[in-house]
Amino acid sequence: MATIKDVANLAGLSRSTVSRVMNKYPYVSEEKKRLVEEAMKSLNYYPNSSAQTLRSQKTDTIAVFIPMLTNPFFSHLLEGIDTVATEKGIRLLVCQTKYEAAIEKEFFNLLKSKQVDGIILTSLENDWASVREFAEHGPIVMCNEYDASSGMPNVCLDQVYGGYIGTRHLIEKGHRKIAFCQGRFKSLVSKARESGYKLALEEFGLAAKEEYAFRIAADYQDGKEVLKQMRALSDPPTAIFTGSDQVAAGLVYEARNLGLKVPEEIAVIGFDDQPIAEVTYPQLTTIRQPAREIGRRAMLLMLSKILSEENQLEDLEPLMLELIERSST
Amino acid sequence: MATIKDVANLAGLSRSTVSRVMNKYPYVSEEKKRLVEEAMKSLNYYPNSSAQTLRSQKTDTIAVFIPMLTNPFFSHLLEGIDTVATEKGIRLLVCQTKYEAAIEKEFFNLLKSKQVDGIILTSLENDWASVREFAEHGPIVMCNEYDASSGMPNVCLDQVYGGYIGTRHLIEKGHRKIAFCQGRFKSLVSKARESGYKLALEEFGLAAKEEYAFRIAADYQDGKEVLKQMRALSDPPTAIFTGSDQVAAGLVYEARNLGLKVPEEIAVIGFDDQPIAEVTYPQLTTIRQPAREIGRRAMLLMLSKILSEENQLEDLEPLMLELIERSST
Repeated sequence: MATIKDVANLAGLSRSTVSRVMNKYPYVSEEKKRLVEEAMKSLNYYPNSSAQTLRSQKTDTIAVFIPMLTNPFFSHLLEGIDTVATEKGIRLLVCQTKYEAAIEKEFFNLLKSKQVDGIILTSLENDWASVREFAEHGPIVMCNEYDASSGMPNVCLDQVYGGYIGTRHLIEKGHRKIAFCQGRFKSLVSKARESGYKLALEEFGLAAKEEYAFRIAADYQDGKEVLKQMRALSDPPTAIFTGSDQVAAGLVYEARNLGLKVPEEIAVIGFDDQPIAEVTYPQLTTIRQPAREIGRRAMLLMLSKILSEENQLEDLEPLMLELIERSST
Repeated sequence: MATIKDVANLAGLSRSTVSRVMNKYPYVSEEKKRLVEEAMKSLNYYPNSSAQTLRSQKTDTIAVFIPMLTNPFFSHLLEGIDTVATEKGIRLLVCQTKYEAAIEKEFFNLLKSKQVDGIILTSLENDWASVREFAEHGPIVMCNEYDASSGMPNVCLDQVYGGYIGTRHLIEKGHRKIAFCQGRFKSLVSKARESGYKLALEEFGLAAKEEYAFRIAADYQDGKEVLKQMRALSDPPTAIFTGSDQVAAGLVYEARNLGLKVPEEIAVIGFDDQPIAEVTYPQLTTIRQPAREIGRRAMLLMLSKILSEENQLEDLEPLMLELIERSST
């Protein structure tokens, strides 16, 4: 492979001149620039990116932390982030944390060791206090999950409101025994939705029962399991607020499997409004989250930090969750 | 921020000794190693990764090219790749090509400029001849799509067989007017499946009609559109082989919407066996692809190239496509 010395020889210039051209220093004549570029081209010489990064201290790479790649909510979020990143020539290092604090903490070192210019968090598995130090090494933007104590810039929706409108909808449909469902991992989003769920129950004078809380469900298979556990209770709920369309689809599938009528015998409400919500039979009532737009805005916010670009988000309408009523409630 | 000089001072050693420890050179005593590590820790000193990369010429990063992040087949594939990568401390740069040859070509430069140690392709948008040169700069592993002329190592399933068993199944169910459906982009996978489709038709003395070929469908919304176009034909098909469960689910949804009975009036076969196949009503007959396992094996193959590890794939059974019969056919 050609070296910088070969380029210098072919161009008939010194190595330091070649180096000045490659690093885009000022005060290099157009003629010398042309000679170096021609020599690089004919030798098929490509500057080593690590050397350039070392000089500029910039990687043009952003890490995106995602708890579960196969959850369509996160793939749509990532799509939104990617669309803006590609436009700006920023690359994405995708870090799947698998909801594990230790894996997440390891990934935070990417910022410390200057392998990325910034991090976008779509969830947060560690307590903020234990990872706060990393924010000294570069910008961190939060989306989806948000720890208010962090003071980090964020694109997050009011998840308390999501839990509230979903639960109120079930109450208005006549239900009094309403279950709540979330994943098995610590999540600020789940906590906020549960607050909204309790708020709605309280408003209508209903008590939240701990036996109606299922903290095991993240995907389609888990949804089937929740329905079985629900039916095994001595006084089973007649409706359930789930945190995900995948889980809701599993519940509806298993209900149909057991000969239960949806929504007559068991009403189910999903979350996100993924394609699966429309395909499920009966179709899922759900809370729509604009996943792509959340991702897009998170990346715009990151650009305002790393490129000191103007923050384009300031004039935008805040994003809202929205109830989509279909046939499962 | 602390520098390497500060570390040397605190440890009471020379800068070159500190550097030897940090770069894991041999012939450094355990005692000196301990002193340097303690000094690094107490100063919160973290070596700059770009400098290390420059010395070792290794990035411990692999690029994965994915045409569409929101297609669950690719997110499951990525999950499989990620699981093996994380175990080995390899990071993934995820590059979404959006089925565009120009974007893909740009990403190939990552290998040339030593920003990644290798590339895993899950699709190929350029002709191999026009990107062949990049293979000189590092290993390229293909999965899902495979251009045999490339001679690159790969984990690919027999897609001709997939097209064949799906179409034969529809013929055996009594159908004679069978449509074929694929995305709007050049794809070796689609081409192979179409060969299988034609093979089955030929075996039963049926002709492939170009008006029965729909080359526009990649997702759920596209599936709805295909059903409308199919019904607008003067002699509409009674069955359709699709290349994706998403597309098949859209077709089934739109059929139900128009009051058509599935499978009596229109039979639909999906591809992949994603969760959506089980949720769709009626449930989708489909061709199962082991997406996670394909990804896992592709990453193992990559490891055998970049770490000169033993190729663990040699003793494994080849992966096969499999017909899963449900209610949509």
